[in-house]
Amino acid sequence: MADLQKFTCVKDIYNLSQALQECIEIKKNPLATPDVGKGKTVGLIFLNPSLRTRISMQKACQNLGFNSIVINAGQDAWTWELEEGMVMNGVGVEHIKDAAKVLSEYCDVIAIRCFPYLKNREEDAQDRILNQFIKYASVPIISLESTTRHPLQSFADMLTIKENWLESRRPKVVLTWAPHIKPIAHSVANSFCEWIKEIDAEVVVACPEGYDLDPQYTQGLMITHKQAEALKGADFIYVKNWSSFHLYGATPEVDEDWQLTADKLRESPTAKIMHCLPVRRNVEIDDEVLDSENALIYKQAANRLVTAQWVLKNIV
Amino acid sequence: MADLQKFTCVKDIYNLSQALQECIEIKKNPLATPDVGKGKTVGLIFLNPSLRTRISMQKACQNLGFNSIVINAGQDAWTWELEEGMVMNGVGVEHIKDAAKVLSEYCDVIAIRCFPYLKNREEDAQDRILNQFIKYASVPIISLESTTRHPLQSFADMLTIKENWLESRRPKVVLTWAPHIKPIAHSVANSFCEWIKEIDAEVVVACPEGYDLDPQYTQGLMITHKQAEALKGADFIYVKNWSSFHLYGATPEVDEDWQLTADKLRESPTAKIMHCLPVRRNVEIDDEVLDSENALIYKQAANRLVTAQWVLKNIV
Amino acid sequence: MADLQKFTCVKDIYNLSQALQECIEIKKNPLATPDVGKGKTVGLIFLNPSLRTRISMQKACQNLGFNSIVINAGQDAWTWELEEGMVMNGVGVEHIKDAAKVLSEYCDVIAIRCFPYLKNREEDAQDRILNQFIKYASVPIISLESTTRHPLQSFADMLTIKENWLESRRPKVVLTWAPHIKPIAHSVANSFCEWIKEIDAEVVVACPEGYDLDPQYTQGLMITHKQAEALKGADFIYVKNWSSFHLYGATPEVDEDWQLTADKLRESPTAKIMHCLPVRRNVEIDDEVLDSENALIYKQAANRLVTAQWVLKNIV
Repeated sequence: MADLQKFTCVKDIYNLSQALQECIEIKKNPLATPDVGKGKTVGLIFLNPSLRTRISMQKACQNLGFNSIVINAGQDAWTWELEEGMVMNGVGVEHIKDAAKVLSEYCDVIAIRCFPYLKNREEDAQDRILNQFIKYASVPIISLESTTRHPLQSFADMLTIKENWLESRRPKVVLTWAPHIKPIAHSVANSFCEWIKEIDAEVVVACPEGYDLDPQYTQGLMITHKQAEALKGADFIYVKNWSSFHLYGATPEVDEDWQLTADKLRESPTAKIMHCLPVRRNVEIDDEVLDSENALIYKQAANRLVTAQWVLKNIV
Repeated sequence: MADLQKFTCVKDIYNLSQALQECIEIKKNPLATPDVGKGKTVGLIFLNPSLRTRISMQKACQNLGFNSIVINAGQDAWTWELEEGMVMNGVGVEHIKDAAKVLSEYCDVIAIRCFPYLKNREEDAQDRILNQFIKYASVPIISLESTTRHPLQSFADMLTIKENWLESRRPKVVLTWAPHIKPIAHSVANSFCEWIKEIDAEVVVACPEGYDLDPQYTQGLMITHKQAEALKGADFIYVKNWSSFHLYGATPEVDEDWQLTADKLRESPTAKIMHCLPVRRNVEIDDEVLDSENALIYKQAANRLVTAQWVLKNIV
Repeated sequence: MADLQKFTCVKDIYNLSQALQECIEIKKNPLATPDVGKGKTVGLIFLNPSLRTRISMQKACQNLGFNSIVINAGQDAWTWELEEGMVMNGVGVEHIKDAAKVLSEYCDVIAIRCFPYLKNREEDAQDRILNQFIKYASVPIISLESTTRHPLQSFADMLTIKENWLESRRPKVVLTWAPHIKPIAHSVANSFCEWIKEIDAEVVVACPEGYDLDPQYTQGLMITHKQAEALKGADFIYVKNWSSFHLYGATPEVDEDWQLTADKLRESPTAKIMHCLPVRRNVEIDDEVLDSENALIYKQAANRLVTAQWVLKNIV
């Protein structure tokens, strides 16, 4: 197969529509190809903690016959030097290029997660750890969420939308900001914008002033600062917090309450509610909405496994 | 099969006598049914550290063809909200009901360990984490030790007693308290009482005054505060420390020395000595007893694997 | 098979020359014997963090059909008492003999890593944890690096030298000390000396005054304190830091710069450069040397897998 050279953003998939169709087939029979990964090892590197991502990837590996080895890079006191040419007399115990090359000797695929520090916009935008692995490793690289994107989440989100939209008209999809208690990365929101553009949908991004996302991701999408207007007639409402992009990583005060509550759905009573989880109940979304039949949150989680399996199957 | 809906206490086993007989068969040929778990995943969740339990479960999974995924819930900065209806603006990053439902999407069985805090008797008695998993997960739940019980340990203990008692008369089984250096949970002792009642034995529970266990577990068993008397003529002596139940979690001073030493066994010279391990040598039990031929401690440990395998085999 | 009773030093291998030849065969077809470990479990115990060692061992297990279970002994708040006869009322929660015996019930092979404290030479020389596991466990023991030796590294190093030396004359092999920023164990250097003696080579050990290794390892090898002279005409240059053996664990000031730089290789232009990794670039070795075609560092890393597989295959 090897349709995929790497998996870091939607552009890495040649034909998303066909990929989603194949995901539906995988979901029907997840154990149909138990030998795809026979004798092959997937290295799962976490510079940041993970739950859904690790478990869904490990299970996807198992369904396909891959071995998986989990590496908690931070935990093992294993810090990397990222700069070229440095005299390594500091905290970095190994250069990232050596780490990437060594791991390539043991793994047939390397998947890696690293969060942004949300301190320096230009630095985070470079996605250095992911890109240095792509540069130096000799095996395919999968992003398990990077400083800028979370493609495995968005892929699962698109599958969930596809499965839950049977009408012939284009759905109205709203990505709405929600409150949180601490600064959150932009990766899920960035990726959602990037992927949803590839779907035939009417898309609105709603967020408070000061919270506009990086224009390179929202370009071509309708942006509004009025939540109520955005929600009107929505078919899918994707709820997510993110910190400010312009005041990078800051969380400027928001006057209105952006929590998605049941009474905000009066003009979109059939809207399906999405969230990547974990969700802070009654902060981002209220219990009534989360526990309603329209919530797709557990289906999204289940689809993380399906799309992870598609990626692994197509990358080797 | 699916004889078991869940595994949290002795009542979950329909016929203990038959189960123990089946364990003996499993032990003879642990690799006899390598496909029971084919394509299935067991999630092993630890809110508290574990060694014997994790390794015996992982090995039991492997013998049956299950995949196992270990989740160290505390370590991954993954704290759960346990209350319904809360505004989640505190330390809990995910509600336990969402955690249980998401994990049900990836796992065919969920096994979970959580210790008591030993601060609040009523709270610990509710076994909230275990019970909320039972309530919200859509897959069978196995207790890997909860705030009130340690059923996998007791099941292995019963198998060890069965294997080491070939006489036709009822054995005299003594559960005796022993000293320790810090407050210890009641779960092993509670479970031992619960399980040993199902065995045809004369049972005595011996502990210092102030250390009586929760009556709901010891009800129907003989209780004494005189160790020497209890040990007289014992066939099995199970040694275990626990903190006070009445002064919940406290460790009131004990005048006499309750350590099990060789010279205390003069009137029960053939008694088999049991302990769930880890044991603090020469604090709980002296070296001479632990290293004697009558000690069953490693056999108990070995039986952890056998009974774990029985549980996994019967729960799917 | 079972040629190996244990794997802790070069003397455990009956015929190194034949073993290296068998490694070359394994490397050609690593999946040739996928059932050697069927139904068997390898316990990988780490008292100190590990990356290469853990991953290469896990992958070697997978290639041979073994199950592997990783145990991070330090992390799980699982500290061992090492002294016999102690009243265990301190930090040790389990006696090492009980740990070894219990793990023997679950594992068919136990592999263990523990670093020296570099405080007390006599204590480190005893290699107590490794040796107590050998004494008390009932299954074969593999050293994953102990306080005195790192045999899996040296085995891989010997294979790398064999593969990269096709001339009929004896190669000149230089083990040279290099700077570091903190005190480093002697195990890699000790083992290298022990293993290289079994190879037909001219060997020189070069280090600053005050950094001579334990004579029991360097006995019979040429030792010099002049790096330039040692490097002249070298065919292999193995670079490694270690702390002082005589001022045990200290790092006395070194006047000259012992970093291996490109311009130091003018009189050994074809020398192959070796390092066990991780390497502190431009402290131990400069970038130009590490990134040159003569560097064998990634090949050494790759050979860790091959030799680990040989050991596992021959120990069961």
